[in-house]
Amino acid sequence: MSEPTLGVIALGNALVDVISHSTEEFITEQKETHGMEKGAMTLIDEARAVELYSLMGPGVETSGGSAGNTMAGFASFGGKGALIAKVAEDQLGEVFQHDIRSLGLQFDTQPLAMGSATGRCLILVTPDADRTMNTFLGASSELSPDDIDPNLIASAQITYLEGYLFDREQAKQAFVTAAMAAHNAGHRVALTLSDPFCVDRHRHDFLGLVENHVDILFANEDEIKSLFMQDNFDDAKNAVSKNVEIAVLTRGEKGAVIVSDGKEISVAAEPVDKIVDTTGAGDQFAAGFLYGFTESMDLEKCAKLGALAAAEVISHIGPRPEVKLADLLQKAA
Amino acid sequence: MSEPTLGVIALGNALVDVISHSTEEFITEQKETHGMEKGAMTLIDEARAVELYSLMGPGVETSGGSAGNTMAGFASFGGKGALIAKVAEDQLGEVFQHDIRSLGLQFDTQPLAMGSATGRCLILVTPDADRTMNTFLGASSELSPDDIDPNLIASAQITYLEGYLFDREQAKQAFVTAAMAAHNAGHRVALTLSDPFCVDRHRHDFLGLVENHVDILFANEDEIKSLFMQDNFDDAKNAVSKNVEIAVLTRGEKGAVIVSDGKEISVAAEPVDKIVDTTGAGDQFAAGFLYGFTESMDLEKCAKLGALAAAEVISHIGPRPEVKLADLLQKAA
Repeated sequence: MSEPTLGVIALGNALVDVISHSTEEFITEQKETHGMEKGAMTLIDEARAVELYSLMGPGVETSGGSAGNTMAGFASFGGKGALIAKVAEDQLGEVFQHDIRSLGLQFDTQPLAMGSATGRCLILVTPDADRTMNTFLGASSELSPDDIDPNLIASAQITYLEGYLFDREQAKQAFVTAAMAAHNAGHRVALTLSDPFCVDRHRHDFLGLVENHVDILFANEDEIKSLFMQDNFDDAKNAVSKNVEIAVLTRGEKGAVIVSDGKEISVAAEPVDKIVDTTGAGDQFAAGFLYGFTESMDLEKCAKLGALAAAEVISHIGPRPEVKLADLLQKAA
Repeated sequence: MSEPTLGVIALGNALVDVISHSTEEFITEQKETHGMEKGAMTLIDEARAVELYSLMGPGVETSGGSAGNTMAGFASFGGKGALIAKVAEDQLGEVFQHDIRSLGLQFDTQPLAMGSATGRCLILVTPDADRTMNTFLGASSELSPDDIDPNLIASAQITYLEGYLFDREQAKQAFVTAAMAAHNAGHRVALTLSDPFCVDRHRHDFLGLVENHVDILFANEDEIKSLFMQDNFDDAKNAVSKNVEIAVLTRGEKGAVIVSDGKEISVAAEPVDKIVDTTGAGDQFAAGFLYGFTESMDLEKCAKLGALAAAEVISHIGPRPEVKLADLLQKAA
């Protein structure tokens, strides 16, 4: 077992978010014509991305991707980490790489030289602060086991996997490669389920991964119910407790429940003046939890850090923290 | 004199803003090493843009450019308008065009097929909410008289010129071409001085344009003092009153003064809960004023609309309105 030099290394989609305000009517109309799911993530191809973009209002562009957002939060707390994700050699790819590296995170994945453009996520924020995501994966979907350096994986306490990557076969293989490298080094593997529809598309593979490779599982209420096909949160919670060392289950304004070693810890949501945009709430909860965990805090404290980071990110537009979370933590203490 | 179908047509730089938080120390250090001017706009070349970007924290990308921002505000009030500006055929160029067109504005300028990339403005926002701008003009500097369609110009009540374009000779010629087309159609020409340093670089040309071609002049206190080389605002105000039909002089928290036909109208600044980022304050003041003017409101009302739009934009990150200014106007009434 080698001594880890990084706290967390994450595998995820490299996406630039294009965030725009939307009416409820527009979402309803797009649901009828294109199966857009309010509050969820729908995968779209390039032609549809162009069409949808042309119908959207002015946007704000910011680096996104679930794992990228989590690592941004993790670095903002002061954590040392790395991200493995695939951009193209284009302007949006440069933006994505810049934003990750400028946070002090390591990013060494070779950009895709030919083929697809850098992936993007067209996000519609409705007046209720909910966000409906439409993802064109682009270059991101080309992530493969070749992009996994086992030595880099071995250098991190936790290897964190973004469930959204499960939408592509070779990325799934990259997951398993990375998980095995982490366990060979005696370190932990974490997974976030990302989205109930994503879970639904790949339930069998997710269950196999959770049973065989995952130590820490992050999921929200809908995702964990979807994974175990349970209507009831408590039943899903009981099912997950048998499969992983630690389950981190977030429930929006109802807070979070941590299940570990037969015990349950409940933590309340951090109060927020005004919820502006829920994009990135789950990602930032994971960031806080992972930072606490890599700093050997107890599970309740880890969850409280998660709640703190989630509260910050939903109080403004955009999926990454606008203030230094380390400062926020110091202020809260 | 043809009947105008558009309210305002603007000529300006096509820039994508990259907005990032910065410390005061960083600005001071960059001033010493690269002549960065806090609160002002410094022109930079591509190599410097790459270097500076690598030193900046994570950014948020959003369409900018002074005239583009003004037109976004003008459209948000409900105005009909067009923008003439030069992007490249690249991803950031697509973003710029999308954001303008999605507001209902006309944008027909042919993108630059080869050569420079789309221009960008690296904006550092310090804790005092001041913004320091570093502009790589890129494709934007290729705007020329060939991009001016006299028929399009003739279709607008007001042709609005962005002073920043004065940094390039052929853009200056495009100004004169546009101004003459507007006056031939019997319509008005407006100019914004943009920046005291820009005025300083091109005082002679600005004075010539103001004397011969400009009906409505927008300037802040520093800009108008720089134009007439006066230490004192009142002296500068007296000088400008002899040169243009209407001078719109903004003074930050001290409000604005409109000088026209030997008379002065003072308007207070709109109160703001918290000033977050002053980027775009002058641009939005112009937007409100121009909208009121094209809707035949009296000058005091025009200035009040300007103050309303400026207050909205300084209360959040980013140079363009986040809410529909038409709704804000209705609420204020």
